[in-house]
Amino acid sequence: MSASRLYLDHNATAPLLPEARAAMIEAMALEGNPSSVHAEGRAARALVFRARETVASLAGVPASQVTFTSGATEAANHVLTPDFRMGRAPVQVSRLLVSAVEHPAVLAGGRFATDQIRVLGVDASGRLDLEALEQALSDHDHSSGQVMLALQHANNETGVIQPVREAAELVRSHRGLMVVDAVQAPGRLPISLSELGADFLILSAHKMGGPKGAGALVSAGETLMPAPLVKGGGQEKGHRCGTENLAAIAGFGAAAVSAAASLDRMPAVAALRDRMERAMREAAPDIMVHGGGAERLANTSFFSLPGLKAETAQIALDMEGVAVSAGSACSSGKIGESHVLAAMGADAALGAIRVSLSSMQTEEEIDAFLDIFRRINGRRMERQAAQAAA
Amino acid sequence: MSASRLYLDHNATAPLLPEARAAMIEAMALEGNPSSVHAEGRAARALVFRARETVASLAGVPASQVTFTSGATEAANHVLTPDFRMGRAPVQVSRLLVSAVEHPAVLAGGRFATDQIRVLGVDASGRLDLEALEQALSDHDHSSGQVMLALQHANNETGVIQPVREAAELVRSHRGLMVVDAVQAPGRLPISLSELGADFLILSAHKMGGPKGAGALVSAGETLMPAPLVKGGGQEKGHRCGTENLAAIAGFGAAAVSAAASLDRMPAVAALRDRMERAMREAAPDIMVHGGGAERLANTSFFSLPGLKAETAQIALDMEGVAVSAGSACSSGKIGESHVLAAMGADAALGAIRVSLSSMQTEEEIDAFLDIFRRINGRRMERQAAQAAA
Repeated sequence: MSASRLYLDHNATAPLLPEARAAMIEAMALEGNPSSVHAEGRAARALVFRARETVASLAGVPASQVTFTSGATEAANHVLTPDFRMGRAPVQVSRLLVSAVEHPAVLAGGRFATDQIRVLGVDASGRLDLEALEQALSDHDHSSGQVMLALQHANNETGVIQPVREAAELVRSHRGLMVVDAVQAPGRLPISLSELGADFLILSAHKMGGPKGAGALVSAGETLMPAPLVKGGGQEKGHRCGTENLAAIAGFGAAAVSAAASLDRMPAVAALRDRMERAMREAAPDIMVHGGGAERLANTSFFSLPGLKAETAQIALDMEGVAVSAGSACSSGKIGESHVLAAMGADAALGAIRVSLSSMQTEEEIDAFLDIFRRINGRRMERQAAQAAA
Repeated sequence: MSASRLYLDHNATAPLLPEARAAMIEAMALEGNPSSVHAEGRAARALVFRARETVASLAGVPASQVTFTSGATEAANHVLTPDFRMGRAPVQVSRLLVSAVEHPAVLAGGRFATDQIRVLGVDASGRLDLEALEQALSDHDHSSGQVMLALQHANNETGVIQPVREAAELVRSHRGLMVVDAVQAPGRLPISLSELGADFLILSAHKMGGPKGAGALVSAGETLMPAPLVKGGGQEKGHRCGTENLAAIAGFGAAAVSAAASLDRMPAVAALRDRMERAMREAAPDIMVHGGGAERLANTSFFSLPGLKAETAQIALDMEGVAVSAGSACSSGKIGESHVLAAMGADAALGAIRVSLSSMQTEEEIDAFLDIFRRINGRRMERQAAQAAA
């Protein structure tokens, strides 16, 4: 895009970091298949090895506990399955619990049958209802198999942080499995598989400045693993077959290093976002910031303006050169109502605008956004005044 | 690798073509998510659209019949399923037939249960036994569901071309589904889904000079489709969810154009390969060229030297600067016995060396390979003579 554009949609996808780009270009020059035994193959394999180390380090686990996938959606479909193995012994999971505000990739439930999935409610901020979780765990009939909870670390639309540790303790007390969708966390929150109490973490490269096309399933060990989703030539210790996506994995590795380093910038990003929200509220006193009262990612603001449909505002902002989302960006070009807003009891038909900042966003950029916001909001308030007068 | 290396392992993975590299670098500069509605999203979406056009053109279908995946292994796992849909109506497939020489990604059978899979024998050249196919089709109990045959266009180890059209006619006469693993074909054989009589084609970008991390499932229509393997946000019309791997898809699109153009060079490549095999036979009269009597890919030679284990020869060649495979390159660093050789009734313990050329391979490079081959073979013949004398 041209230099005059302002990209404020980092929760949809983050532009490729220069260090990730450099790692990809280096990888693209390698000739070999990482599975080949010759020198070219070994060079490719070494690159996968290095990337695995840095991704593992980001999640606080040994490299052997990282399984590379084509992205977070595949990782979700991989781990959300009734069919696990403890070594070679089968382990059945008979119930999947998910919060109502999970990403569609998790809400779809992977390989669970529809009647095995139970959706748990959230409060007005979008935080998982822990009492509902405890009830669902108590209701579970263990004779049919284990129970699994899939819960996001932070919501992609609102940025609201879930009570992951508390939920994990409840799940553990019922001998269940805890899957954490940590896609929005890297670079924004410290992520440690063990501190979160997770059995599995889902990561995506492109949300942290790496390339599209790489993700990971991080596991708490190497013994208990989901049945492979993509079977074949035995790559990734047989957990995920298919020739490794060398360039994307290299970029993922580089982005993981940067994500760990960008945590330090989050207080400044939060201050910038908070200043932006104060300025928006000054201009639009009736603005609703969804999840604004809860602990949120520093970079995310999800808001509605009464009388202005989010889709309309999104298009107006786009025409003014600003890229934001109306809800999430997950199904090709179609904008559906936000299931997140609906679960929070907000007006899903009105929708909401998501502004999601990078860790390097500047005051000047936010000021430029605010100028445009005030113009669009001014027209809205004029229409509202005219309607009130009519 | 250094300029003194000679890479002759193009069936394992082909080095990235300059035009694919350029397309990837262009894609890496795009900021947006192809699912986003803003200008950045639309630019990303346009790139996916263009790549879909060229991949479709390579397979002779409209763009709407190309579903991008993370690679051929995923595409195989996607299409090899008992669970199809004709629009919204479920269609059951109750039997998967595969040839004994299929790639491990196909032999693994995707989502079919082990007892639903039947492996069909091949002749000494590795060609599917059509009588066995006909018998298996006749034996199939249609009341349980349809029958599916998965057959490769050309074998990755021997290069031997399968009787795909004949097999497809038999399958059609039994109202079955025909899946063609065309991974080794692009740039080497004309591929037309309709001329092959296939319902589905499997393609891989990195075997045709595109990047690792992209593949496609090409379908004969848009109505009959396998149940999604990777569910979530609705990308690829819901057939394959997850944010599109923009850079890899762009590289795939560029490589597809080049593959179509490189067909013209195949007669020259065949002549080079044939000259190489004649020279090897002169030096090693006891050489066995597997599938040498059958119609083969122009670029592939798969041979054994009595008394010299393929793994040993492969390592010796690697130390001399030549990259070739001993069998296929599909499981991380481990060399297992070739199931292809075993199915052909050859000596799988001895193994075989695969030399696979690019469409741009030169006479000088083959001469350099032959010099090294003669040295390694000379030591073998000396050992054999010494053993015979002892």
